[in-house]
Order: sequence, then structure tokens, then C-alpha cells
Amino acid sequence: MIAAIDIGGTKIAGGLVAPDGTLHHRTERPTRRRATDPGEVFATVTEVVADLAADPRWARVDRVGVGSAGPVDIARGTVSPVNIGAWRAFPVVAEVRALPQVAGAPVALGGDAVAMTAAEHWRGAARGFANALCLVVSTGVGAGLVLDGRVYPGPTGNAGHLGHITVDLEGEPCPCGSRGCLERVASGTAIAAWALDQGWRAPAGAPSGATAAAVADSARAGDPIALAAFDRAARALAAGIAATATLVELDVAVLGGGVLRAGELLLAPLRRHLRSYATLPFTRHLAVRAAELGTDAGLIGAAALALD
Amino acid sequence: MIAAIDIGGTKIAGGLVAPDGTLHHRTERPTRRRATDPGEVFATVTEVVADLAADPRWARVDRVGVGSAGPVDIARGTVSPVNIGAWRAFPVVAEVRALPQVAGAPVALGGDAVAMTAAEHWRGAARGFANALCLVVSTGVGAGLVLDGRVYPGPTGNAGHLGHITVDLEGEPCPCGSRGCLERVASGTAIAAWALDQGWRAPAGAPSGATAAAVADSARAGDPIALAAFDRAARALAAGIAATATLVELDVAVLGGGVLRAGELLLAPLRRHLRSYATLPFTRHLAVRAAELGTDAGLIGAAALALD
Repeated sequence: MIAAIDIGGTKIAGGLVAPDGTLHHRTERPTRRRATDPGEVFATVTEVVADLAADPRWARVDRVGVGSAGPVDIARGTVSPVNIGAWRAFPVVAEVRALPQVAGAPVALGGDAVAMTAAEHWRGAARGFANALCLVVSTGVGAGLVLDGRVYPGPTGNAGHLGHITVDLEGEPCPCGSRGCLERVASGTAIAAWALDQGWRAPAGAPSGATAAAVADSARAGDPIALAAFDRAARALAAGIAATATLVELDVAVLGGGVLRAGELLLAPLRRHLRSYATLPFTRHLAVRAAELGTDAGLIGAAALALD
Repeated sequence: MIAAIDIGGTKIAGGLVAPDGTLHHRTERPTRRRATDPGEVFATVTEVVADLAADPRWARVDRVGVGSAGPVDIARGTVSPVNIGAWRAFPVVAEVRALPQVAGAPVALGGDAVAMTAAEHWRGAARGFANALCLVVSTGVGAGLVLDGRVYPGPTGNAGHLGHITVDLEGEPCPCGSRGCLERVASGTAIAAWALDQGWRAPAGAPSGATAAAVADSARAGDPIALAAFDRAARALAAGIAATATLVELDVAVLGGGVLRAGELLLAPLRRHLRSYATLPFTRHLAVRAAELGTDAGLIGAAALALD
């Protein structure tokens, strides 16, 4: 049995995952993201582990997997989540390993997009593919790689940072310091911002306000600006996925994250644009699939990292 | 001892390479690139191997490495060099293995940019780096990857095709079928074409005509268009190298090929632009180096592929 922990800016979740990838006993608590003391944030991890350890199956736990919002540094075992200000180079691996219930068992660490990739490759839409790119399209754009049959985290765990490759040399500046980043065109935030800028307004009573979900509702109703916003995002995603396929050879791109609730509204133009950007013979067989594991991917993936 | 063969559109070279990477006995013959019969092109390979086999050191040869102009398919052992029309999915591995002097010894195959990468990683500027991108900037832009300490050719041998990633979403169409490809901005051909388009003219008596080498001569003399042509190419290369570092994590980028005879004229603006495109913390340590092995890289790299 593997203990899995998924650390995000909103919540910290835990689960027990069987060796076949089945998730048992899920628990979660809100992240104390405004805490200024690193220990205060970690106290929630301690509580989540205590929850899990109360399950009799904890006795069979022999390893722990941690997925975390990034940046991470898997070589050092530290995390510096953008949305958790108190944690900068926080030694999460050492802290988890030192918990009395963990008692020195091996602790694996990965970024959240890499964990999602490990999950989709183990139990989801990338299963059986030797070379895959798995994307999380939500507030930002994250991704992870499977190369030659295995998750490829890179030396510090940051490989697959697709959201920050430049797809437009002279594009807008990005908060990362670069410009023309894919995320500035294709994230949910960017889809809503561009639509607003073009004159779109959220339908009256849209539950979430002017979000990508509301743009998707308008697009389904035929709004031309909303449709163009998704087409524009799909084109940038196609160029980024094609660039990755051109650089490392891919068999499949798997897309998940909140924006994918738009489904074919994003995937149909993405497949169409991919035909015009992925043109070299060794890239043409690339399949595009929707992710299958939803919000459990973080925990299942953290467990997969611990098994690898 | 390793027998190495380097197949290009202009010449087919051969060499004997010692296990320490030293090149002995180099031979080369012009490619019969206008031949229509695949066997007629292969006859030159036969002659090159016969040349090598006449060396007494041939007795110690126990394997063969072949580097070839691409596209290649290392899974099938075939090559389809753009500039050698008679070879389409030509089974070069099987044909070389069947030569009487080779007598069934193992034959490794790689694309020319991957071979250059293997050479620079074994004996050149990428030595000692676990994660590297090696570029050949000449008529086109080719490249190869070293990941986690080993050359990463990808399943068909085409990984690292940097010249055909899109760096400008709405850029010019490329003969590959895509648009805004790095090669359309950064190759020697593109540097000369852009300079001409902006009003630059080759200096009277330039030995090579209106080439990137002539643009470099003008740039050294202070010509602003020529300087801008190199700056523009350097910026696109920086965006492409940064994208690769963002996707797979890199420690070094090594640049070779004819355009690199311009030296710091290209490398200085490249390093400067890299600071504005490679901004994520895990990409900032990336070093930029000139290739060290020159025209021997093809043979030394073919041998490296046979050893791997």
C-alpha cells in the first residue's frame, strides 16, 4: 500500500493507493496558504497523514508519494509553491520522512503536472503509450512527459513546463520574465481575458463570472468571440504540442484540467490545428485524448511516483 | 576498433575510430546524389568500406556506426535523405551488414545531427554534461539531445528536430508544411535571405556570393542590416533553446555548423537573448558553447552511436 499526498494552493489531500492503482480512503483539508510560518502549513500535512494512519490498511504502507504545486526540486527534495508563500525551498521530503507514522520509509516527490502524467500513464488515457505529453489546462498550463515508457521528470522534476515555452517570439511579456509563452494564450485565465478584451461579456447569471467556463457556455450558444477564444487557445496548444513532438517524438497528448470541461469545444480545433503544425512524418501519428482520472489524478500519480 | 560511415548529400565519408574516440584513416567520396538507382548510390558506400578494409586495423573492427542525412528511421534501419532522391526508406543497416567485410557485425544508425550530438558529448563541448542540446546551424537547423547522461534519439531517431518547432505562431509557411519554424529565421539560408530582403548586398568580390558568410563579413564591418540579421537569428535560436530547456531541462547548448564560423557575432546576442527567454529558475544555469569537433563530428559520432 502507498500513502499519497497531494499539496496544492487550495487543499492538501491524502489517500491510500493499492499497488494496482486503486484509490482507497481519500481525505483533504484546506491549505493554510496565508500562513507565514512554514511549520504552520506543514501542520496540515501532519493532520492528513494522521487521518490516513487511522485506517487499518496503514499497517501495509511501505512508501509515500508526494505531488506538489511547483516549482519543485526533486534532487533536493524541496518545494516552493507559487501559491504557498511560507514555503520557499521547503524540505518536504525530509519533513514527511521524519513523521512518526512514516518512520523513515522512502518518500518520492514530484510536481503536480508530473504526478498527473504518472497517473494517466499508469491508469488513464496515456496507458500503453511509450511517449506521451500530459497537460493540465486550468488557471495556467502545466504538463509532464513520458519518454521511452517511463515518466521523465528531468533532473529537478521540472521537465514538461509546456506553459512557458515561447510560441510567439514577439508576444506579450509573461510574469515568468519571458514573452509569448503558451500559457499567456491557452490557459483558462487567458481565454477569459482575451474574450473580454474582444468585447465578450459573461451571460447574465453565469455562476462563475467571466471565466473560461462562461466563455465555453457562450461558445456553445454560438457566440463568435467565444468560439474564436477557444480556437485561439487550441491553436497555441497545437503549436506547443507539435513542438514537443518534434523535439522528443510523442505518441499521444492527453489533456486534463478545468478548461477541458469544454471538451470538444477545445479538442476539435486542437486536432485540426495539430494537422497544420505537426507535419514532419514522425509526428503525424500523434493521438489527442481527454484525461480520464479527473481530480484523483494527483493522488494516484503521487503513488505512481513512489512506485517508480 | 569501430568503422564509421557518414552519409551526406555531397559526400560519403568513412573512418576507423578507436575506442577512445580518436579518428584514424579518414576517406571520402562524392555522393552520386543524382543517381536514380538506389544500388548506384550504395556503390559509393561499398567503395568507402573497401578503402577502410584495406587498412590492417580493419581486422580489429567489431562494429559499424552509420550517421546519415535525414529523415532516418532507426527502428526500421532505413534512411530517406532529402538530398538523395534515389533513397526512400532505403534499408542501409541491412545493406551495410550484408557487405562481405562487415560480415554480419552489429550496425548502428543515427541521423546526422544526432551523430554530431553523440560526438560532442563523447569527445567535444558537451562532454561531462548530463543534459545537452547540440545544434548544427547551416543550410538548415538540426539538433540532437542528451538526456540523463545518454544520447536520446527517440523511437525513430528523429528527436531534437529543433529547426521545425514553431517559434512564431503566425509566421511564414515552411516547406515542412508548418509555419513560423525556427529554421525559417535562424538558418544560414534565412539569415542571407532576410538581409537581402532588407536591402543588404554582398560585398563586391565576396567569394561565396550572398551567403550567411558574406552577411557575417558585412556585420564585422559594422553594417547595421547584417548585424540585425544575426541578432534576429540569435533571438529565434534563443527562444528555441529556451523552449527545449523548459521542456526537458538542459545544462548546455552546443552550437556547430557553417554559420558558427561567425562565432561571437552569433553567440554573443544568443547568450543575451537567452537571458530573456530562459527565465524559469531551472533553466537559468544553461551554458552556451561552440562545438569543438568540426567536420570530424559526423564520423566520431557515428562511432559513438555504435558503442552506445
